Amino acid sequence: MTAYQDLERRFARIAAIGDALGILSWDTQTTMPDGSNDARAEQTATLTVLAHELETDPRVADWLAEAEGDGSLDDWQRANLREMRRSHRHATAVPTDLVEATSKAISACDMIWRTARAESDYAMLLPSLTDVLRRVRECGEAKAAVMGLTPYDTMLDEHDPGARAARIDALFDDLAGFLPGLIERVLEKQARDPDPIRPEGPFAVEAQKALGVRLMGQAGFDFNRGRLDVSLHPFCGGATDDVRITTRYDEADFTKALMGVMHETGHALYEQGRPRAWIHQPVGQARGMAVHESQSLIVEMQACRSAEFLSYLGPVARDAFGGSGPAWEPDNLRRLYTRVERGFIRVDADEVTYPAHVILRFRLEKALVGGDLDLKDLPGAWNEGMRTLLGVEPPNDRLGCLQDIHWPSGGWGYFPSYTLGAMTAAQLFDAATRADASIKPALARGDLGPLVAWLRANVHGKGCLFASGDELLTAATGRPLDVSVFKRHLETRYLGA
Amino acid sequence: MTAYQDLERRFARIAAIGDALGILSWDTQTTMPDGSNDARAEQTATLTVLAHELETDPRVADWLAEAEGDGSLDDWQRANLREMRRSHRHATAVPTDLVEATSKAISACDMIWRTARAESDYAMLLPSLTDVLRRVRECGEAKAAVMGLTPYDTMLDEHDPGARAARIDALFDDLAGFLPGLIERVLEKQARDPDPIRPEGPFAVEAQKALGVRLMGQAGFDFNRGRLDVSLHPFCGGATDDVRITTRYDEADFTKALMGVMHETGHALYEQGRPRAWIHQPVGQARGMAVHESQSLIVEMQACRSAEFLSYLGPVARDAFGGSGPAWEPDNLRRLYTRVERGFIRVDADEVTYPAHVILRFRLEKALVGGDLDLKDLPGAWNEGMRTLLGVEPPNDRLGCLQDIHWPSGGWGYFPSYTLGAMTAAQLFDAATRADASIKPALARGDLGPLVAWLRANVHGKGCLFASGDELLTAATGRPLDVSVFKRHLETRYLGA
Repeated sequence: MTAYQDLERRFARIAAIGDALGILSWDTQTTMPDGSNDARAEQTATLTVLAHELETDPRVADWLAEAEGDGSLDDWQRANLREMRRSHRHATAVPTDLVEATSKAISACDMIWRTARAESDYAMLLPSLTDVLRRVRECGEAKAAVMGLTPYDTMLDEHDPGARAARIDALFDDLAGFLPGLIERVLEKQARDPDPIRPEGPFAVEAQKALGVRLMGQAGFDFNRGRLDVSLHPFCGGATDDVRITTRYDEADFTKALMGVMHETGHALYEQGRPRAWIHQPVGQARGMAVHESQSLIVEMQACRSAEFLSYLGPVARDAFGGSGPAWEPDNLRRLYTRVERGFIRVDADEVTYPAHVILRFRLEKALVGGDLDLKDLPGAWNEGMRTLLGVEPPNDRLGCLQDIHWPSGGWGYFPSYTLGAMTAAQLFDAATRADASIKPALARGDLGPLVAWLRANVHGKGCLFASGDELLTAATGRPLDVSVFKRHLETRYLGA
Repeated sequence: MTAYQDLERRFARIAAIGDALGILSWDTQTTMPDGSNDARAEQTATLTVLAHELETDPRVADWLAEAEGDGSLDDWQRANLREMRRSHRHATAVPTDLVEATSKAISACDMIWRTARAESDYAMLLPSLTDVLRRVRECGEAKAAVMGLTPYDTMLDEHDPGARAARIDALFDDLAGFLPGLIERVLEKQARDPDPIRPEGPFAVEAQKALGVRLMGQAGFDFNRGRLDVSLHPFCGGATDDVRITTRYDEADFTKALMGVMHETGHALYEQGRPRAWIHQPVGQARGMAVHESQSLIVEMQACRSAEFLSYLGPVARDAFGGSGPAWEPDNLRRLYTRVERGFIRVDADEVTYPAHVILRFRLEKALVGGDLDLKDLPGAWNEGMRTLLGVEPPNDRLGCLQDIHWPSGGWGYFPSYTLGAMTAAQLFDAATRADASIKPALARGDLGPLVAWLRANVHGKGCLFASGDELLTAATGRPLDVSVFKRHLETRYLGA
C-alpha cells in the first residue's frame, strides 16, 4: 500500500466517525429525551477525541510527507492530498491540552449563555465569554504560528478555506457603503406599494409538510438518502447518503417553514450531490461554509423567492391549504416574501438587511480577536454599529449582542460566510441563467431541475477539487467574488430597477 | 493514575462507543432511509473496529495484570476488574483476520437468508450458512483453547457468562420430559372452557400507544431517559440513560402490541435501573442475556398476564378503546392472554409451548457446533424434533428451520437464554411475592411499583456484582435456577392446579 492509499484509508475512517457524529447530532436535536444529555455529551466527546487521535497520529504526518512526493497522483488525488494536509494542519497546530481547555470553556459558556440571553444579562455572560475568547485566541495564535496567518484569519480559514479578513473587509466595506441608501430607497418604495395581505390560517402541520415534501422533490431532494423532520432550530445535518434537514412549523403562518425547508433543501442538494467517487474523502466534501450557504440561498433566495417561482407557488399553496381570495395572488405572495424591515434579530432579517447584521458581527469579532475591542465594551459597540448600519438600536442585549450562539459556542470566524454565501449565490445564479435560458421559465413551472443540473455540474460535483471558494467561483462564473452582482440583484428585485 | 484507573477510563471510552452504536442501531431500525444502508454499515463497522482496537490494545493486558495484584480494590472494583478480564478474554482470543472473515460470512448469509426464508428454500441458504458455521466454530475453537471450555460453551458464555451446556442439558431435559404431557392436559382443559372472544377493532394506533405509555409509566419507565417508537421487529435498545423500546401496532388487534410493549418495558427497566455509580463500567451492565430475558418476562408473563393485572386491565383497556360487551371482561381477557396452541413459529408461541421451540434449537445448535449433526441434515432433524417436542411438523422450511435470524446472523449460543430467562422470571417472581405480600394486590390495581422495587434492589441495581446469573439468583432467591418453580407456575396458571 502506498502512503497515499494509507491516507485514503485513514481519512475514510475519520469520515465515518464524522458521519456517526452527524447522526448523533441530528438525534440530539430531534429525538433524544432531555435526561440523556450527559450520556450523549460523553458519546460525542469520545468520538470527537477518537477522530482527532486518528488524524494526529504521527504516522499521518509521515504518510503526508511521503505522498506529497508521489508523482503518480492525478488531479483529484492531488486535491485530496491538499485537503488532507489542510485538515491535518488545523488538527495538529493546537496542543491537546489547549483543545480540551477550549472545549470546556465553550461548554460552560454555552450553558450560561442560554440563561444570560433569556434574562438579557450581558454581565452574567462576560466572565465565561472572556474565557472562551482567551482560549479561542490562543488556538488562533497557535495556528497562526504554523500557518503564517493572523489568528483571526486562521479562524476564517477553518470554516472557509482561503478566506482572509483583508479581502472580506474590501467586499463588506463596499456593501456597507451601499446598503443604508438601498434600505432607505426600498422602504420608501415599499411604503408606496399596497401592504401585503397575510393568508389566514390555521395551516395544518400535515398540509405544510406535504407541500414542503412536494417542493423538495421538485428540487431534486432524494428521499431515499435523506429525511425531513422537526427541530427547534432548523438545520441540515445527518451523514453521507443520509442527509437530514429539519424545520419548525407554525400553524398560524406557513410562509416561514416553507422557505425554511427550501433553504435547507439547498444545503441538502449540495450534500447529496457531492462527487460519488470521493464521497468518503476530504476532496469529496463541500467547498467551505460560504459556498455551502450559497447553495441554500440560491435555492431559497434566488430561485424560490423569484417572481417566476412565486407565480407557480401562489395557486399551488392556495390549493394545498384550501385557501381563496387575494392573499393567494402571486403578486401578493411576492410582496410578502420580499418584505423589508429594519429589525434587531439576524435570523428574522430579510434579504436586504441581513448583510448589515453580518457585517456588524464580522467587524466586531475581528476587533475582539485582534485586541482592538474589549469584551466589556461589546454592548456599546454593538448598539453603535446597529445605528450606523441599520439605523435602529436594540432596547436591550437580548435583542442585541446576546442573540447569537456563535461566540459563546466557539464559532468565531463563521459569520462572514452568511453574506459571502449570499453574494456567491447571486453570482452563481446570474451565471447559471446566462448559461441556460431554460432555468427561469422552468422556475415559473415550479421546476428547479435545470438550475440544480447546472449547480451539480459546476458546484456540487466539484467537491474540493478547487482550493478555495473563489477558485470554484472563477471556474463556474469566469471571475472571483464580485459584489456588484449581488448589489444589482438587490436593486432589481427590491426597486424594480 | 493506577492501572485500575487506566482500565476504568479505557472501558468508559469503549462503553461510550457502544452507546453510540446503540443509537445508530435504533436509528437504522426506526428512522434511516433505505438508501443509507451502505454508509451506515461503514459507520457501524468503523466504530466496532475502534472499540475492538481500544480493548485489545496491548496496554490493556498490562493494566489488567497489574490491577489484579492491587490489594486496595473494594468488592465492586474487583467485580469490575473480573468483568473486564472476561470481556478482554473474549475480545483477544480470536485473531483479527478471523473476526473479519466471520463478520463477512455473517453479512453475506444474513442477506441470503432474507430471500431464502421468503422462498422457503433451504438449499439456497446452505452454502453460506455452512460458511458461517465454519467461522463461528473456528472462533469457538480459538476461545476454547484460551478459556478451557468446549467451543459451544464459549458461545453460551459470550451471551450468558457462566452458562454451560451440561447444566442447560439437565434443566432442559427435565423440562422436555414435562412439557408434552402438560401441553396435552392444557389443551384438554382449554377445550372444555368457553372460547375467548376477540375484542372488535379497529383500535387506533394513537389510542394503543397512549395505553402503552400509561402502563409503561405505571411500571416505572422513565420517559426522561427513554422513548417508545415503532419498528418492524420490536426491540429494547438505545444507550445509557437513553433506553429506547419499540413495538409494532396492528389496528385489528391491540393485544399483541400491548404485551409487547410491556415485554420491552421489562428489558428497559433493567437498563434504566443499572447501578448509577457504575453505569459506564462493565460491572454496571446487565448480568447476561438470560437474566435480561427474565426481566422482560417477569413484567410481561409473571406480572401483566396474571389474573390480578388482567382484572385491572380489562376495564382500563375497554375505556381506552371505547369498547363494550363481554369481550372486555377480565376473565375473557385472561383466556385470550393465556391461550395455548401448538404452532410452528417461535415468536408467535405462547408461554407453555415456547420452551419446546427453544429446547429444539438448543439441541440442534449444540449438535451442529459439536459436529454431531451436519447442516444438510438440519431440516429433517428440525421437523423430527418438532414432532417429538410439540407434536406438529412444519409443512415447509419457512415455517421450520428457516424462521429465525439467529444462526445466519452469527447468534449461536443465544437461544437458551429465552427459556432460562422464563425459568429465572418464575423463580424471581415467586421469591418477590413471598418477600413482599403487597406485590400481587398492587398488580390488581395496575401498579407494578412494589414488584419493580424488589427487582431494583435484587436484580437491576446489582449490575454484574455477581459472576453469573446463577449467583445472582442464589443471592436473590436462596437457590440457583430450579426448574420446579417454572413448572409449578405453568401448572397453576394453565391448569388451575
